[in-house]
Amino acid sequence: MHRIAQIGAGRMGSVHLKNAALNPRLDLAFIVDPRLDVSEIAASVGVRVATLDQVLADDSVEGVIVASSTDAHLEQALACLAAGKAVFCEKPLDLDLATLKAAEAQLDKPKAPLFVAFNRRFDPHCRALRDRIRDGEIGELETLQIVNHDPAAPPAHFLPTSGGLFKDFTIHDFDMAAWLMPDPFVEVFAWASCLVDPAIAEVGDVDTARTLLRDAKGRICVISNTRRSGCGYDQRIEAFGSTGMACVGDVVQDTVQVWRENGATSAPLHPGFMSRYAEAYRNEMDHFADILAGDAQPETAYAASIASLALAEAAARSAKTGQPVRL
Amino acid sequence: MHRIAQIGAGRMGSVHLKNAALNPRLDLAFIVDPRLDVSEIAASVGVRVATLDQVLADDSVEGVIVASSTDAHLEQALACLAAGKAVFCEKPLDLDLATLKAAEAQLDKPKAPLFVAFNRRFDPHCRALRDRIRDGEIGELETLQIVNHDPAAPPAHFLPTSGGLFKDFTIHDFDMAAWLMPDPFVEVFAWASCLVDPAIAEVGDVDTARTLLRDAKGRICVISNTRRSGCGYDQRIEAFGSTGMACVGDVVQDTVQVWRENGATSAPLHPGFMSRYAEAYRNEMDHFADILAGDAQPETAYAASIASLALAEAAARSAKTGQPVRL
Amino acid sequence: MHRIAQIGAGRMGSVHLKNAALNPRLDLAFIVDPRLDVSEIAASVGVRVATLDQVLADDSVEGVIVASSTDAHLEQALACLAAGKAVFCEKPLDLDLATLKAAEAQLDKPKAPLFVAFNRRFDPHCRALRDRIRDGEIGELETLQIVNHDPAAPPAHFLPTSGGLFKDFTIHDFDMAAWLMPDPFVEVFAWASCLVDPAIAEVGDVDTARTLLRDAKGRICVISNTRRSGCGYDQRIEAFGSTGMACVGDVVQDTVQVWRENGATSAPLHPGFMSRYAEAYRNEMDHFADILAGDAQPETAYAASIASLALAEAAARSAKTGQPVRL
Amino acid sequence: MHRIAQIGAGRMGSVHLKNAALNPRLDLAFIVDPRLDVSEIAASVGVRVATLDQVLADDSVEGVIVASSTDAHLEQALACLAAGKAVFCEKPLDLDLATLKAAEAQLDKPKAPLFVAFNRRFDPHCRALRDRIRDGEIGELETLQIVNHDPAAPPAHFLPTSGGLFKDFTIHDFDMAAWLMPDPFVEVFAWASCLVDPAIAEVGDVDTARTLLRDAKGRICVISNTRRSGCGYDQRIEAFGSTGMACVGDVVQDTVQVWRENGATSAPLHPGFMSRYAEAYRNEMDHFADILAGDAQPETAYAASIASLALAEAAARSAKTGQPVRL
Repeated sequence: MHRIAQIGAGRMGSVHLKNAALNPRLDLAFIVDPRLDVSEIAASVGVRVATLDQVLADDSVEGVIVASSTDAHLEQALACLAAGKAVFCEKPLDLDLATLKAAEAQLDKPKAPLFVAFNRRFDPHCRALRDRIRDGEIGELETLQIVNHDPAAPPAHFLPTSGGLFKDFTIHDFDMAAWLMPDPFVEVFAWASCLVDPAIAEVGDVDTARTLLRDAKGRICVISNTRRSGCGYDQRIEAFGSTGMACVGDVVQDTVQVWRENGATSAPLHPGFMSRYAEAYRNEMDHFADILAGDAQPETAYAASIASLALAEAAARSAKTGQPVRL
Repeated sequence: MHRIAQIGAGRMGSVHLKNAALNPRLDLAFIVDPRLDVSEIAASVGVRVATLDQVLADDSVEGVIVASSTDAHLEQALACLAAGKAVFCEKPLDLDLATLKAAEAQLDKPKAPLFVAFNRRFDPHCRALRDRIRDGEIGELETLQIVNHDPAAPPAHFLPTSGGLFKDFTIHDFDMAAWLMPDPFVEVFAWASCLVDPAIAEVGDVDTARTLLRDAKGRICVISNTRRSGCGYDQRIEAFGSTGMACVGDVVQDTVQVWRENGATSAPLHPGFMSRYAEAYRNEMDHFADILAGDAQPETAYAASIASLALAEAAARSAKTGQPVRL
Repeated sequence: MHRIAQIGAGRMGSVHLKNAALNPRLDLAFIVDPRLDVSEIAASVGVRVATLDQVLADDSVEGVIVASSTDAHLEQALACLAAGKAVFCEKPLDLDLATLKAAEAQLDKPKAPLFVAFNRRFDPHCRALRDRIRDGEIGELETLQIVNHDPAAPPAHFLPTSGGLFKDFTIHDFDMAAWLMPDPFVEVFAWASCLVDPAIAEVGDVDTARTLLRDAKGRICVISNTRRSGCGYDQRIEAFGSTGMACVGDVVQDTVQVWRENGATSAPLHPGFMSRYAEAYRNEMDHFADILAGDAQPETAYAASIASLALAEAAARSAKTGQPVRL
Repeated sequence: MHRIAQIGAGRMGSVHLKNAALNPRLDLAFIVDPRLDVSEIAASVGVRVATLDQVLADDSVEGVIVASSTDAHLEQALACLAAGKAVFCEKPLDLDLATLKAAEAQLDKPKAPLFVAFNRRFDPHCRALRDRIRDGEIGELETLQIVNHDPAAPPAHFLPTSGGLFKDFTIHDFDMAAWLMPDPFVEVFAWASCLVDPAIAEVGDVDTARTLLRDAKGRICVISNTRRSGCGYDQRIEAFGSTGMACVGDVVQDTVQVWRENGATSAPLHPGFMSRYAEAYRNEMDHFADILAGDAQPETAYAASIASLALAEAAARSAKTGQPVRL
């Protein structure tokens, strides 16, 4: 058992808190939340409320889950690493590329393991796709098509702090693309529109985008995004190779179909990432336990964070200028 | 080009008439229908109206399509065969097993080729299933599950002349079972109910049945029938073998799907046998052209007719007595 | 938190042990296993090894999970109930109908809650099917088709203590049929063969069966069983109603497909019940927690056990005599 | 019956020849082919060989199917129109936009009906998708994803006369996009690579591309092309709207599936456009019969030809310059 603490008990924090509490290899001892009264939550999972300073000073704590608000991730992660604690940081490490690069010395080869949790890499479906590609089942991978469509747009007033569509949402697709494709990308082109909700345009953001990435050999990746699918959480990837195609489809809520005169209707898609990636979040926690046990290196850390953020900034610039952006 | 005539221009007759007219190897010259004024139909496909005697006396006619009412099939087929004409007979040859057996001398080794058209054997989907089984893709075939569900029950007053559910409807499934399974069946058990329309019970028929067939080795076939599926024409077969399962699914009207919050909905199933088996009916006509050209022996003739009718009579007896029937 | 103990740590026992240990509402305190040294297992989940007598005498223990060998279920369950402990009993309560009936006084209205765990009722897929039927999405349910095919036959020498195919395997289908269909069954007919492994016949059992059930109104259920599918754990149900069909399909291991020249291949089916019903087993444990909290009555208890065992005995008799059996 | 002639009996010509011969409303009287000896083909469908001049001079000929080599389409179509014959022209009218525009006077409002046959508009699957979108089943259409992947690349030496990937192959997708989307496109961006066969690069062409189109409102269409899928003829469209998604999937050769331990495998996709769009080609011929009968205006004519060719030229320029191209 590895003793850990967690910072933050908001939406994603609650997910990690529950998974950490149920993980048989982790001893979740403390919860830190500078903004909320978390005493009730702490009691429900049987942990103590503490301050970050208390956690950092406690030598029995081996690791910290950073699941606070995005703008606090980097500072807290750095503090934990400096104190020799392994870090599980909810993505992103930070929304600003320059800031992230400035912290390279502490993050690229940190004193303690740093794990930045990109959930889809831990989803068994995405992982199976990666394995099939890597095993050569479709020959050489040539092009990739990623569909990432949210069920319904968030209220527009939540968006200004999100970093914008590319940093907040497409960021997952950039990480998937980098994970699945063999070479780094050299050029980005994006078109973005506001088709879902004019209020999103009013706060300076977009809700619909198509992004192209290509590498030096001419392999191409297309990313399709919308904030509102109208049909649930639509998350699919198609990988086209020299000897065939491999795809990962949507996960329906159950395998029931109802056939009537108008056709056969499947169960609905998942309503959002919470239920769709529930297993991925559990697997992230297992990965953290492996890291704490010294059995694994972090699957995603500083390098992956920098890479996807760089693509997001390039895509945003391309969408703004209407021109392709070389990396 | 082989000159042929057709008897009957009712529902199935119209299908065969059109296919015969369009078949580039057949020269449809005459249409015979003792009950209807078919002059308009004849004109529409450019053939002459004739009597059966005229057709039988015309040496240029090589073959005859018998698509009249069921009770006339046998007599007309026998007359054509006696006149040396190849016969394409819409199934069934006859509804009575004893009558059929009494005609064995003329039918089992007829003077001219006799083809009794069981449409599903000519459906490319069913045929692909048969080929995959025969090619050993599922090892040894052990059990079979046939679903044959009509979209909606016919008006009850049409049923008394149909021969009843087993002879009129399940007959196709008995032929499929015999075609796909390696050995003849030795025992039949059936339960039949009237769940769809009480008027069907009033005319002495049933609308819902489950029939079991087994062979001497213990291989088992299940046939599922209803007169009203509520979801279109549901025609599926599952073949379970020693190394896997092969199935033929329903054919949807097109490959469009619409995804909404309640799930993904396919296109409807076909509304009935006319459209679902359109290609099978064309293939039957091609098979008749092959027979006339001497390039093929009839795929289904007297033996198949006897075999499926015997199963139908046994099933009807089992459903009535509540006991299994040995063949 | 409700303090509980568990008897048995074999194959199914291990599943329940893990789920009980991880359930946040249960405090698994003791493990009892008269046959095995379970000290290591006990240590792995942090519980103490105890004898059944110690558990029964401990007033702090509110419930007991009976997951021992089948022949011990009934006696242990009775002992626990007599001691006022709620019981979670792995199915079946007993393999003998007469024995079970003899214990009716203690079991039908027991002193403490008795829950007999039929896993499929707790599977979210099966449950969604039941809900859709109950909500009238296919009108009146008329017929049912259950496919229950195991991936591969167990070694024949394990079978003599299993109770035979119908009691050991089809029992789940009998419970499903009773759960989904509106009225009790009045008649059973079954054919059973040995097609998979002759050694199974040598120990007096069968490996392949088709069973028909019908109720007083003529509604029919077909159950398809084999001990060896050749394609993984094949578990499907089709429910045919007056306005359509609802089915629950197989759960694939992931949603990846690989398309090549020979067609599109899905991921494999689950290899067995352990992984396929993992969530159902967790839900069973949640249901036990609900029962202990007084928030739920046992979903399945003595009545369901008697009902499915009666069907199993009738089916076995029918298969042996070749005659239908009235209940 | 409308008397017609056909020019050209090559690959596509053979398809149209057979469909014209079998169409009950058309009387195919002449076949013209200045390059090949078509006497055998003519005999097989029972038509006479003639010269184009003979056809043009024959007042009984109402229409002409132009299915010659691409570089002859325009001149022959113009000659037929000038002679007052209705024209069925295999696409494209011409490969050069300027040439096509120069003929606007004769083509935009021609003396006789001009039908340029874009096959996919006549495919029942694509047509069903269009109908569903038009009927509002997904609300407002916002973005479109078209996959058009050929099974295997043609020999590189055939490509120089093809017009290049965008004019030869993507042209169909440009027509689909224009057909399905509500407004004209205003901007094009394309990346193209040579990943399949270096010999294709040597002749100055590409084999893999992703093209983006957008309209003035910011609606976006993505087109995915490869000359070699490795898995058959992959032709799919996904239309994303404000209340859901509608897609048209691939058509498999039959509905058989084989389930084995490694998963369930469908039948192969169609091997190419000949079999995949067989019904579309028949429907094109029916449409021509409707046009000759005065019952329909040509679904696609000069305007559609110009529109898709303009997109193809813009895409080719974008792929070459690396910059988006405004129309």
